[in-house]
Amino acid sequence: MKLSQYPLKTYKDTPAEAELTSHRLMLRSGLIKKLASGLFTWMPLGLKVLKKIENIVRKEMDATGALEILMPAIQPSNLWEETGRWDEYGNLLLKMSDRHNRLFCFGPTHEEVITDIVRGELNTYKQLPVNFYQIQTKFRDEIRPRFGVMRARDFLMKDSYSFHLDQSSLDEEYKKIGHAYDNIFMQLGLNYRKVRADSGEIGGSTSHEYHVLAESGEDKIGYCDEEDFAANVETIKGETAPGGGELSFARGIEVGHIFQLGDKYSKSMKCSVLDSTGKSANLMMGCYGIGISRIVAASIEQNHDKSGIIWPKEIAPFEIIIIAITKKDDEIVLLKSNQIYNDFIKLGYEIALDDRSERAGVKFAEAELIGIPFQIIVSERGLKNNTIELVERGKDGNQDISIDAIKSYFENK
Amino acid sequence: MKLSQYPLKTYKDTPAEAELTSHRLMLRSGLIKKLASGLFTWMPLGLKVLKKIENIVRKEMDATGALEILMPAIQPSNLWEETGRWDEYGNLLLKMSDRHNRLFCFGPTHEEVITDIVRGELNTYKQLPVNFYQIQTKFRDEIRPRFGVMRARDFLMKDSYSFHLDQSSLDEEYKKIGHAYDNIFMQLGLNYRKVRADSGEIGGSTSHEYHVLAESGEDKIGYCDEEDFAANVETIKGETAPGGGELSFARGIEVGHIFQLGDKYSKSMKCSVLDSTGKSANLMMGCYGIGISRIVAASIEQNHDKSGIIWPKEIAPFEIIIIAITKKDDEIVLLKSNQIYNDFIKLGYEIALDDRSERAGVKFAEAELIGIPFQIIVSERGLKNNTIELVERGKDGNQDISIDAIKSYFENK
Repeated sequence: MKLSQYPLKTYKDTPAEAELTSHRLMLRSGLIKKLASGLFTWMPLGLKVLKKIENIVRKEMDATGALEILMPAIQPSNLWEETGRWDEYGNLLLKMSDRHNRLFCFGPTHEEVITDIVRGELNTYKQLPVNFYQIQTKFRDEIRPRFGVMRARDFLMKDSYSFHLDQSSLDEEYKKIGHAYDNIFMQLGLNYRKVRADSGEIGGSTSHEYHVLAESGEDKIGYCDEEDFAANVETIKGETAPGGGELSFARGIEVGHIFQLGDKYSKSMKCSVLDSTGKSANLMMGCYGIGISRIVAASIEQNHDKSGIIWPKEIAPFEIIIIAITKKDDEIVLLKSNQIYNDFIKLGYEIALDDRSERAGVKFAEAELIGIPFQIIVSERGLKNNTIELVERGKDGNQDISIDAIKSYFENK
Repeated sequence: MKLSQYPLKTYKDTPAEAELTSHRLMLRSGLIKKLASGLFTWMPLGLKVLKKIENIVRKEMDATGALEILMPAIQPSNLWEETGRWDEYGNLLLKMSDRHNRLFCFGPTHEEVITDIVRGELNTYKQLPVNFYQIQTKFRDEIRPRFGVMRARDFLMKDSYSFHLDQSSLDEEYKKIGHAYDNIFMQLGLNYRKVRADSGEIGGSTSHEYHVLAESGEDKIGYCDEEDFAANVETIKGETAPGGGELSFARGIEVGHIFQLGDKYSKSMKCSVLDSTGKSANLMMGCYGIGISRIVAASIEQNHDKSGIIWPKEIAPFEIIIIAITKKDDEIVLLKSNQIYNDFIKLGYEIALDDRSERAGVKFAEAELIGIPFQIIVSERGLKNNTIELVERGKDGNQDISIDAIKSYFENK
């Protein structure tokens, strides 16, 4: 992308309401734009990050054998009445009536809908186990939306639901998805812990959360890496760590949550199949969520400095930005910058070119603010020696590299 | 995908309410499942088709230089009041109140939101022209939803909005997007016409629709291919074709619509920039839609026979299905089928393997119903001669091909 053709608008100041670093930096860098309380438009750079996370999640979920589907965002009230959640869920549920005065909600979660599908589609144990997932915008009518996309009203989730004949099959899938989640969060370049958790209003027994460690986190977790133990402190009641190791404490941002639901939903919604003896059996269920839009903010909370965002390269909107230090009537710098840009595009890199007629200081500041991992600085001075300057975001110093060696520099990265 | 691990459920009968062929075939083949009136879940096979169309649309929109964003589905009423559409739009607009009794709607279209973004982000003509697009689920509260995803209440759209300083820039973009649409519909393997149209309630002057030709189409179009003329008959008033050629008539399904909006929205919402003389100028707008979920149904209306769907290979859920004709204790057929399956997977093909213990007749019928373009039939009889049978969906006859030659057969396709 050439910035001359992209209406990038960054901000020095942010509204006082933005208390959190990620919220401030996302607004200042123009990744998102507020439409109304708790509702944000994902602008081009922000959407690129969101899509990269989405694609990593999709790839790993596909690898587990889970099947992607897409359920309607708008759900009829009758299903929620079957489980009693129409009333229980409270004001977080955004309700509405259609033109025929039938009641609907904008789904914050899809246990009822998927259970309704499965009870209609499956009838024998031979079709089990099965895991359906979707990647979809959900809605929670927060009383006081804040922290930007960290606690927005609409948010992008990966939610999946597995169905089993018995507990051992559920245990197996729970382990498999937990492993996929580890792959996902490692690929996203996040420092995280998988912690023992409460199941909360979703119901069920066993449950684990995935927390990105960051000082601004809303949850407190206790962990002992030597003993491979971590738990939400809410669940630690006078316990010492198994094995007796000493607990460390840190704050975490919840970005994933997996639950064993048991038969909570299959029982109330009569979701059963015939087992191998021909007897009707209620299905066992697991459910597994990842807050895709929240991960964008969590990653920023963990990776930033006073100049702006520092993206892990796996989810950066661009891996490299070429900064052309142009002066008036200075065709050669732009020419050379475009040449490098086209070469990298051909090699399949995602690269931006700052070819605007802005001051060098503005270009540096914006490249740092939006957090692109590598800057290639092309200047008249450098070109005299046939070099460019390379700056790695978040690291001190820079290095001169001969123009002919840039490509091999990145190939060997 | 191995069908033994996929809970495929097809139906011989469909509810009487399904009047349209595509609606019947999508339900029978399990591409979609009804949740409530006009609301459908996209099941795995259906979602694969939807995603393929989405990806072709995204690739061509990116190639035009349009920037992808994602606006909230839920929009505040105040923006719609600025343009007067909060009342004008009528009952198709699904309205709701949040917990603080503020009014919102589930957006059927996003002119107001994008105009609000642009008036906040852009301030000089130097940032123009710009075209933002999104791919998103929208909602229209149809009085009588019917025809399946053809006229559902929620539907997946690509909508884009361009902004210009003057008419000539708008004309240029309008032409560019029109050209991208031609690329898209050709790649989708559709027989379509671009027709002159009315602008309807969106407003503006110049406008064209893209129609997939099909007998079941709701619109009537007149066209003369020799003169490169086509128009919605609503707009033909006693006209003969330009050049005097004779008009043919056909029924069409609208799958795309492009509009020149002029300053309708920028005027009422005060969306302006400073021009080169420093004077404030209202922006000129274009808007461009493609009904992604509707294309799935339109493609089926155009490509089917009495046995089921015939997918163009560009959007088929799988390009090839291997049908293993297994008998009891017949390991060799399954073994060979799995071998061919793994070979094709490695080569990057999207391929399904019917390795279920179903009768051959059931497997053939389902492969035809779900419309996979190529069937590779592996049987004991064939293996004796070291051949498989190849059947091309929608074409008569089949051919025996030696196992060693299958790969090169598809490479040269």
